[in-house]
Amino acid sequence: MRHFDELLEELRAKLLEMSGLVQSAIHKSALSLRERDLSLAESVLKGECRINQLELDIDALATSLLALEQPVAADLRFITAAAKINNNLERIGDLAQNIAERAQALLNEPRFDVRVDISQLADLVESMVQMALDSFVKKDPQQARRVLFSDDGVDALRDSVFAQLIDYMKKNSQAVEYCVDLMFAARSLERIADHATNIAESVLFMTEGVDVRHHAHAH
Amino acid sequence: MRHFDELLEELRAKLLEMSGLVQSAIHKSALSLRERDLSLAESVLKGECRINQLELDIDALATSLLALEQPVAADLRFITAAAKINNNLERIGDLAQNIAERAQALLNEPRFDVRVDISQLADLVESMVQMALDSFVKKDPQQARRVLFSDDGVDALRDSVFAQLIDYMKKNSQAVEYCVDLMFAARSLERIADHATNIAESVLFMTEGVDVRHHAHAH
Repeated sequence: MRHFDELLEELRAKLLEMSGLVQSAIHKSALSLRERDLSLAESVLKGECRINQLELDIDALATSLLALEQPVAADLRFITAAAKINNNLERIGDLAQNIAERAQALLNEPRFDVRVDISQLADLVESMVQMALDSFVKKDPQQARRVLFSDDGVDALRDSVFAQLIDYMKKNSQAVEYCVDLMFAARSLERIADHATNIAESVLFMTEGVDVRHHAHAH
Repeated sequence: MRHFDELLEELRAKLLEMSGLVQSAIHKSALSLRERDLSLAESVLKGECRINQLELDIDALATSLLALEQPVAADLRFITAAAKINNNLERIGDLAQNIAERAQALLNEPRFDVRVDISQLADLVESMVQMALDSFVKKDPQQARRVLFSDDGVDALRDSVFAQLIDYMKKNSQAVEYCVDLMFAARSLERIADHATNIAESVLFMTEGVDVRHHAHAH
């Protein structure tokens, strides 16, 4: 049986690899939507397998670490935070896949000139995930809190995107499928932001031992 | 510090309470949609708080149990399965809340006579959650497998609901908001089924020690 510290290092390394892959998946899926780029969408779908494998590996590592010996408080908080972040990353990977699938579908539909702020939404969400993962690596609770505060901006943009799409559908019945695809892509982006928030909450739990879940912007 | 078995019993009891509340939330939210019943929708929204509190309690209990002493293999698998199921139940609670919010929104919109199979979808999803939680209580891997197989039926029904709604929107531009609300309610139901599948996978992991995630219908 390997040493605790060695497994802990492996957990850290795999989580970093997973973070990198998931961030790239978000970036590519958003770009495939914006640029109507099929190869980017396909690359996201191909990358899903490795992300899923990493989730299983990290989960098994975390369970081994917990079973191997009684971790001290700080290690225990790190391992439980890592397990939760792992789970959130896997879901973000799934959502990036959903966006890539919508991008694929949109390429098979007649094109409409819908003016929506979806790129702006994607940029904000991407930066939230980046900030949340950074706050984990740097164990920085201030940065984690900034993620929590960004969530209001996401909700406002989501509302605006939805209103634009509903308005467009009402006026252009032939664009219904097209707008529905964009709507679900926007919804997936919003949910990625929710997972970024969860990651930030895990960082706060890890660094300060406080559980801020279910308390909007609580401290 | 309390005894391990006592905490384990408390974990079990709280998880059962949480299961009951979440099942009731699904049932009420689906009924509020079907019957256009505002008080049912409101009751789901009011119940959310207790579900969130239970999630935090169960999470804390699971962490204490893992930290308290090195659990034997079967207990460790039970505790990690319980923690995952807890997480899935909380998300199902959120999704039931989303459905209740859509039901509220629908009551504020002009009514349309859209014929969709959403009740059938709700019934199937409800039975999947019931089966998954039963398989956990009874530690019954056969029943857990039946949950995994039900997921195809959910996908087929979801496709049919979506096609019906898109068709209706194209023909009735004034019904766009109405159909979009129904669409997101159907999507929430589909996601509840995904969480039922996750719960069943945790049961298989707990009872047989196999990880069937990311392997569609494995074994």
